[in-house]
Amino acid sequence: MKKNFKKVNAAIIVIGNEILSGRTQDLNVSFLSKWLNEKNGITVDEVRVIPDVEKTIIKTTNELRKKFNYIFTTGGIGPTHDDITAKSISKVFKVKYEYHPEAFKILKKYYGQNNFNDGRKKMSKMPKGSNLIYNPSSAAPGFKIKNVFCLPGVPLILKSMIHNCSKYLNKGSKVFSDSINLVTVESNISRELEKIQKKFKNDIDIGSYPFFRLGRVGVSIVLRSQNKHKINLCKKEILKNIVKKKKIKKV
Amino acid sequence: MKKNFKKVNAAIIVIGNEILSGRTQDLNVSFLSKWLNEKNGITVDEVRVIPDVEKTIIKTTNELRKKFNYIFTTGGIGPTHDDITAKSISKVFKVKYEYHPEAFKILKKYYGQNNFNDGRKKMSKMPKGSNLIYNPSSAAPGFKIKNVFCLPGVPLILKSMIHNCSKYLNKGSKVFSDSINLVTVESNISRELEKIQKKFKNDIDIGSYPFFRLGRVGVSIVLRSQNKHKINLCKKEILKNIVKKKKIKKV
Repeated sequence: MKKNFKKVNAAIIVIGNEILSGRTQDLNVSFLSKWLNEKNGITVDEVRVIPDVEKTIIKTTNELRKKFNYIFTTGGIGPTHDDITAKSISKVFKVKYEYHPEAFKILKKYYGQNNFNDGRKKMSKMPKGSNLIYNPSSAAPGFKIKNVFCLPGVPLILKSMIHNCSKYLNKGSKVFSDSINLVTVESNISRELEKIQKKFKNDIDIGSYPFFRLGRVGVSIVLRSQNKHKINLCKKEILKNIVKKKKIKKV
Repeated sequence: MKKNFKKVNAAIIVIGNEILSGRTQDLNVSFLSKWLNEKNGITVDEVRVIPDVEKTIIKTTNELRKKFNYIFTTGGIGPTHDDITAKSISKVFKVKYEYHPEAFKILKKYYGQNNFNDGRKKMSKMPKGSNLIYNPSSAAPGFKIKNVFCLPGVPLILKSMIHNCSKYLNKGSKVFSDSINLVTVESNISRELEKIQKKFKNDIDIGSYPFFRLGRVGVSIVLRSQNKHKINLCKKEILKNIVKKKKIKKV
């Protein structure tokens, strides 16, 4: 690791029976991971998908918030009975679960005095002392308490509010990546690739991922490093000693 | 829970830096969860996504294999240097990591004597005593040892071999589900839905999920239970006391 490299990491907790049952395809993990890494230099080191069960939410959050710099939860902050994230996170930090005055005001204005029913009011209840994460698309804010960020599960809404998390984040050093896509199979290049990985073992993580696209079989070689220059050196070596030598077509 | 209900559960461990970095969208969790539940009566109670790091793979597998009836891992069983699942799982069970004679034979036949290089041979190395999970699409088998099933990360290949896991599974009782899709927002029905959830609290899990489809905003209400009859009763009550009373359109 480079001496001046600042590693900042995060874990994502996806809260939702609908993801565990396979009914809903999660789309938030890949979006959040990319956003955290590319915009903030924060790497996601673990993801957990857990059910809407208070005990499990509390236990998982408590375990992970001590292991990682930041925790992002998705799901369970809506108006219905199965939305229990805010209440559970209050218990994690042993603080009151109560109306956040600003959130209450935002939602009252959004729905209007006459339509501000109990379910809608519930969306302004959160752990005492939380900071709001504003929501430009459907008003109900997410919240941040200590190093835990609670976001909604609907991908469109999550995306619309993610930039409002930035001000609370200590940024890390960016991890750079580059990739080479080849028309080959992994087992044709694995020995040579391992040699190059050994040579660059202190600087580069080389990943190899088969793909099937438009009826074609191929391999993506992905180079990741804190050092852009070393990525270029490593890429040149792969092109020279694998691609050119084995006469492999690039995509 | 019904007296004769047999609960069997599982956890999925997704092994792969490419999922954590957001580069690749995971598609295996939803497929596996549905297959386990619908074909085998097995519910997935937790998912973890972890990096290609031996120590992490060992620790996570050891923790989860004691908590759940079955563990399914995806990813990391290919021919390249970053495929370390089989070796790590050998360490979990403290058994040798060695060529599986039948897997070796299958791969030798598939590639032919002259093209059976080290990377290809590596794909037949696994924990001693493993059972093979045959792979009809690209030959390299997955494996099963004790309650841990190791499958590849490429969704197409995983899907082609999943039925070969069936014979090793003790099936559980099926969880039934039904859903009602409404043109409304959650906060319009949350109070009434909570009442119905309370009434059926011993038999039914009611989930509520907002959706945005073709420019329309809606809510899916999902009922899950071990008891099909109770689902029907609960559905009738929702249709009568929420949908009809509030004049909500169904999708």
